[in-house]
Amino acid sequence: MNIRPLHDRVVIRRMEEERKSAGGIVLPDSATEKPILGEVLAVGPGKMLDNGEVRKLQVKVGDKVLFGKYAGTEVKLALGDKEVLVMREDDLMGIVED
Amino acid sequence: MNIRPLHDRVVIRRMEEERKSAGGIVLPDSATEKPILGEVLAVGPGKMLDNGEVRKLQVKVGDKVLFGKYAGTEVKLALGDKEVLVMREDDLMGIVED
Amino acid sequence: MNIRPLHDRVVIRRMEEERKSAGGIVLPDSATEKPILGEVLAVGPGKMLDNGEVRKLQVKVGDKVLFGKYAGTEVKLALGDKEVLVMREDDLMGIVED
Amino acid sequence: MNIRPLHDRVVIRRMEEERKSAGGIVLPDSATEKPILGEVLAVGPGKMLDNGEVRKLQVKVGDKVLFGKYAGTEVKLALGDKEVLVMREDDLMGIVED
Amino acid sequence: MNIRPLHDRVVIRRMEEERKSAGGIVLPDSATEKPILGEVLAVGPGKMLDNGEVRKLQVKVGDKVLFGKYAGTEVKLALGDKEVLVMREDDLMGIVED
Amino acid sequence: MNIRPLHDRVVIRRMEEERKSAGGIVLPDSATEKPILGEVLAVGPGKMLDNGEVRKLQVKVGDKVLFGKYAGTEVKLALGDKEVLVMREDDLMGIVED
Amino acid sequence: MNIRPLHDRVVIRRMEEERKSAGGIVLPDSATEKPILGEVLAVGPGKMLDNGEVRKLQVKVGDKVLFGKYAGTEVKLALGDKEVLVMREDDLMGIVED
Repeated sequence: MNIRPLHDRVVIRRMEEERKSAGGIVLPDSATEKPILGEVLAVGPGKMLDNGEVRKLQVKVGDKVLFGKYAGTEVKLALGDKEVLVMREDDLMGIVED
Repeated sequence: MNIRPLHDRVVIRRMEEERKSAGGIVLPDSATEKPILGEVLAVGPGKMLDNGEVRKLQVKVGDKVLFGKYAGTEVKLALGDKEVLVMREDDLMGIVED
Repeated sequence: MNIRPLHDRVVIRRMEEERKSAGGIVLPDSATEKPILGEVLAVGPGKMLDNGEVRKLQVKVGDKVLFGKYAGTEVKLALGDKEVLVMREDDLMGIVED
Repeated sequence: MNIRPLHDRVVIRRMEEERKSAGGIVLPDSATEKPILGEVLAVGPGKMLDNGEVRKLQVKVGDKVLFGKYAGTEVKLALGDKEVLVMREDDLMGIVED
Repeated sequence: MNIRPLHDRVVIRRMEEERKSAGGIVLPDSATEKPILGEVLAVGPGKMLDNGEVRKLQVKVGDKVLFGKYAGTEVKLALGDKEVLVMREDDLMGIVED
Repeated sequence: MNIRPLHDRVVIRRMEEERKSAGGIVLPDSATEKPILGEVLAVGPGKMLDNGEVRKLQVKVGDKVLFGKYAGTEVKLALGDKEVLVMREDDLMGIVED
Repeated sequence: MNIRPLHDRVVIRRMEEERKSAGGIVLPDSATEKPILGEVLAVGPGKMLDNGEVRKLQVKVGDKVLFGKYAGTEVKLALGDKEVLVMREDDLMGIVED
């Protein structure tokens, strides 16, 4: 069973286990501001511009992305035992590269 | 008796029975954030762009869609014994595929 | 005496008597969310687009329409013994067809 | 002494005496929602569009118009013994015709 | 010493003495809604449109104008013994003509 | 050490000493509404329009400008013993000329 | 491990040690308004305009920039022992040059 996001939305699987990785990015523990790392599972077809054209998203499936905990509208789904979130690409801060 | 939605609105029948399906998406029970699954019963002609053109909707009749509980303006109607909601396509998170 | 609505506004006569029709749409009784059914009595010439063109409305006189109780700016007038409301077409959810 | 309204503003003289006319529109007495009937005394040259063109107003001097009590910015002036208001055309609900 | 307003702003000298003129406009005394009459002392070059063009203002130096007491951002300066205000042209209701 | 403002921002040095000049503009002392006089130290390259073009600012280095005390986002820096502020050109009321 | 910002976002390393430099900019200590100095570590590809074109950012890697403490959405990451922030270029006040 898959979720195919609409417009400029993306489906993301949270990667909480990375929040304590010592050598790389260490995400702080305070609940109010913690950024969240995730993997992109699916991307929408793009944002519809005012002239009717569709603007492709910058992220692609497999990208590791950063996003604010409360940014956007989150949808929490249990897919097996992982959390899945749906949000707009504009809620993503950036792509994390190794 | 049918509802023909205007502009970019869609008519949706809630599928609450799926909220406890074990093998697929299990929707949590907390009232504040639970996403809602539904089936599209009717779609509007599309969103009128600033230049006067009409942008067709991405969803079609029969699609299973996800949407936030409090997103958009909901209209609850009893059509027989099912709940019917009317909201904008932009309130839809994505299409659920088998 | 008639009201000729301006721009994208419509004049609507409430059809409260239909709220208890058994075979069709049964509107719930809770005051906060009840949708309202009405008949379009008059429509404005259309919405002026940014480029100066006028976009005709999708509803026409005689349409049965659904709208939220608190959506838009309502003007309640007593025309004989019926209630009359004036609101924007964008406050209408959809057209109800038999 | 005259007021020449700017852009899309109109000058309106309230017609309170009509609020109790039996045969026509009877405006309710509750202060919060009562629509107000008035006569257009002067209209601005029109609304400046984004492309620099001027969009003429739909109302003209002499029109009887309906408007919400608290819509727009009202300016109350005493011109002789009548009340005069200045508001934007968009605050007008419609034109009342006999 | 002069103030040259930027963009669509105007410099206005309040004409409080006219607020009690018997034959013409009599402005009421309640502080919350009293309109203010003033004379335009200087006008900006115009509003920059989205396409980069400049839209000239409709008022000119010498015009008597009406404006709401709390509309816009007011700057009160003492120029000799008169009050001077700076606001946007959109805060002006209209031009008063004799 | 210099600050080069971005886009439509300007760097301004406050000229508090002028607030009591007898012959010219006398700025009142009440904290809530006092306009502030300053000298432009640096201007950004201009505002980026929607079509990608850059709109040059109307103020230039050396201009004496008026601005509201709380308008815009102010950045207070001590450069030597003078206060320096960074704000958008749109927060400026006008240019003061001798 | 790197963060590649999306659209018009930038990654910035805070330079708190400069807040007490005597000869240059001395940033005040009050928590509510203190501007923050930082070094740009990475910049996004640019802001997508309404016509679909991408507007390059004005800042580049290595620039020293000023930004308000609470402007934009900040993401605090520990990269080694330095703080890293992600914000939009529009939250930057200007570039500090030696």
